[in-house]
Amino acid sequence: MTEQRIYLDSAASTPVADEVIQEMIPYLKQQFGNPSSIHYFGREATRAIQLARKRVAGLVGAAKPQEITFTSGGTEADNLAIKGTADYARSKDPSKNHVITSYIEHDAVLEPCRDLERLGYSVTFLPVTQEGLVRPEDLKGAITPSTALVSIMHANNEVGTIQPVKELARIAHDAGALFHTDAVQAAGKMPVDVRDLGVDLLSMSSHKINGPKGVGALYIRDGLEIMPIIHGGGQESAMRSGTENVPGIVGFGKACELAGGRLPEYQRQVSALRDYLIEKVLSEIPHSRLNGSKTNRLAPNAHFTFFGVNGEDLIIKLDEDGIAASTGSACSVKKQKPSHVLKAMGFSYEEITGSLRISLSMQNTKEEMDRTVSALAGVVKELRSLSPFKSKYYT
Amino acid sequence: MTEQRIYLDSAASTPVADEVIQEMIPYLKQQFGNPSSIHYFGREATRAIQLARKRVAGLVGAAKPQEITFTSGGTEADNLAIKGTADYARSKDPSKNHVITSYIEHDAVLEPCRDLERLGYSVTFLPVTQEGLVRPEDLKGAITPSTALVSIMHANNEVGTIQPVKELARIAHDAGALFHTDAVQAAGKMPVDVRDLGVDLLSMSSHKINGPKGVGALYIRDGLEIMPIIHGGGQESAMRSGTENVPGIVGFGKACELAGGRLPEYQRQVSALRDYLIEKVLSEIPHSRLNGSKTNRLAPNAHFTFFGVNGEDLIIKLDEDGIAASTGSACSVKKQKPSHVLKAMGFSYEEITGSLRISLSMQNTKEEMDRTVSALAGVVKELRSLSPFKSKYYT
Ligand SMILES: Cc1ncc(COP(=O)(O)O)c(C=O)c1O
Ligand SMILES: Cc1ncc(COP(=O)(O)O)c(C=O)c1O
Repeated sequence: MTEQRIYLDSAASTPVADEVIQEMIPYLKQQFGNPSSIHYFGREATRAIQLARKRVAGLVGAAKPQEITFTSGGTEADNLAIKGTADYARSKDPSKNHVITSYIEHDAVLEPCRDLERLGYSVTFLPVTQEGLVRPEDLKGAITPSTALVSIMHANNEVGTIQPVKELARIAHDAGALFHTDAVQAAGKMPVDVRDLGVDLLSMSSHKINGPKGVGALYIRDGLEIMPIIHGGGQESAMRSGTENVPGIVGFGKACELAGGRLPEYQRQVSALRDYLIEKVLSEIPHSRLNGSKTNRLAPNAHFTFFGVNGEDLIIKLDEDGIAASTGSACSVKKQKPSHVLKAMGFSYEEITGSLRISLSMQNTKEEMDRTVSALAGVVKELRSLSPFKSKYYT
Repeated sequence: MTEQRIYLDSAASTPVADEVIQEMIPYLKQQFGNPSSIHYFGREATRAIQLARKRVAGLVGAAKPQEITFTSGGTEADNLAIKGTADYARSKDPSKNHVITSYIEHDAVLEPCRDLERLGYSVTFLPVTQEGLVRPEDLKGAITPSTALVSIMHANNEVGTIQPVKELARIAHDAGALFHTDAVQAAGKMPVDVRDLGVDLLSMSSHKINGPKGVGALYIRDGLEIMPIIHGGGQESAMRSGTENVPGIVGFGKACELAGGRLPEYQRQVSALRDYLIEKVLSEIPHSRLNGSKTNRLAPNAHFTFFGVNGEDLIIKLDEDGIAASTGSACSVKKQKPSHVLKAMGFSYEEITGSLRISLSMQNTKEEMDRTVSALAGVVKELRSLSPFKSKYYT
């Protein structure tokens, strides 16, 4: 590699910002106390967590810092929200044993829901439109008096579709159910305000917004009770035991502060770059299509189908050119199973296998987009020339 | 503070070693990929985790790196071991609904066990001797055909007592039960070999051995199946979903390598320093007593009762002198409840409240011990002069 690598996978993970690392280092080295200790070192660690909690609360408009429970990441936050709520609800009223989610959720939501099924709960998975949107009327139709929780993601990690969370939350509440949203892809990349949205629970993850891996948070509305899933020393108001990941939490707090401060600029800059990329791809690469919604779309997300090629091959070829992209959710790639999100959107097998996700950041440039499109055009052409569909798409 | 602070609370947490930070930094900055991504950045992250897994496996004598599942810390490892085993066992055979542990476990073991009780399991808590040792015959007496799991800690975090794990594991196996040990305080501070001990599950935590907070591991013997407690993308062979804390895991791996390499020197140096401290305390401070076992004791641990004083006051006064110590488990200090460990050892209320834990590291010096004992002697005397027990212990 002589040229600089191009990273187009910010939805999978992001580098930790220098300012974030700077704030973390002292908590690795000198301020290494256990926050539960009452001496100087413990107090310094506690103070650092308090500041971070304020900053995280600030990014999502939580009125009280205590509404933020730190976890080890987005996946744990989703598990805590779903299992914690379902467990608590059923313990109070055995008839509250129904959960509603959608077919396009991240595995961090789908899998805990499947575990609930194993434990005797019933789970309804809502379908989505071809753009990947949950229809409010579908939720209305599925909800029953036994529904304890509705969990619908804020922005989809594969196609970037933004759900009508506010409306969905209202429907849930009108029917006496709680509402959780997985905002792992949304928080820090679009305005997210728990009070405006009216959600009861909201998941976040640090490493998607230039914070460190291994830390996330669950917003739990003040007054709401749920069961913890990790028990022990009673940290995080007993909602999440275990010695706190102080440097990680400090870094996450700083990352939230940075993301909040740059949000308007981020959205403007990144969506402009994305639109530039989309236009160029669609005009320069034949038989290519943009997937997802044109209007309800996360700024960094571009998701294409290139007919007649295999997305996996595309990733590998682009990687050889020093360009890092993805076929979809990072988690599912290694499992080699076709995207459940695209399937739910009604895509054919060919449309699914030919898909590519590009997720941008403020570090990306127009020049990178140019280099990407030209590499992509070449790779797509090459792959089509080798493909059995050659006759159909090779030009 | 003009003088250097003295840190005597390594059982609560430790500073991250410089070599560890050096290995972590690249995984925060340039090598920030999501290990699930198939491109360059993902592969670099995956490689780093593989190396760390080998190093962690090496510290505890695990034959195969895959026997190590990374978690967010010791508490999560304990929860996974206990709930994961109990859940799996009962799902295969509903009559396997009994778990045995001891009264002196960390809350990270006790609380998941109490949660099992809520879920309909029965749990037996074994008593201990005055030294804090579980009697093998007590385990023999408690075990039944319905016992799925026995969980007894390797070394106690308050009084440093080392349990006869090998013998206890054999008893469990003879009766058809699995054996878990919480080795959060033991691993890296004494020789720990899963094969020699014959344990099925073993918990570790990074921040107790100069690794970063927010990462730990559960050893799960090859071939053993348990249920995950966090579901999602299927990372860690589906035993623990969630984007891996790559820098944390890298740091934990390095910390294990360092701890393994220095172990004989660590044990020699730290136990010599501890014995020096103990002797000096007992000879210079009247009405002081060493608690725990003289022989089966973790190198860094010294635990005293100073009659006629309150341990909390002692900590606060020492802190004013720049000395960081603890009354016991960091977690329980803020809860202000008397130590369940000392209670189980048969201590009176006065013996419990007068207790102080000092836990050492290789960074501590003889000079620090001298300064500590002289500060301690002064503080104890001062507190006794103010105490209602004055007449009894003030000299
Ligand atoms: C929508 C969504 N939810 C949850 C997660 C899981 O979060 P984490 O990576 O912090 O475990 C991710 C990313 O992996 C995601 O994109
Ligand atoms: C014996 C023991 N087990 C478990 C834990 C919990 O581990 P962690 O601090 O990594 O959550 C601790 C320390 O806090 C401990 O001393």
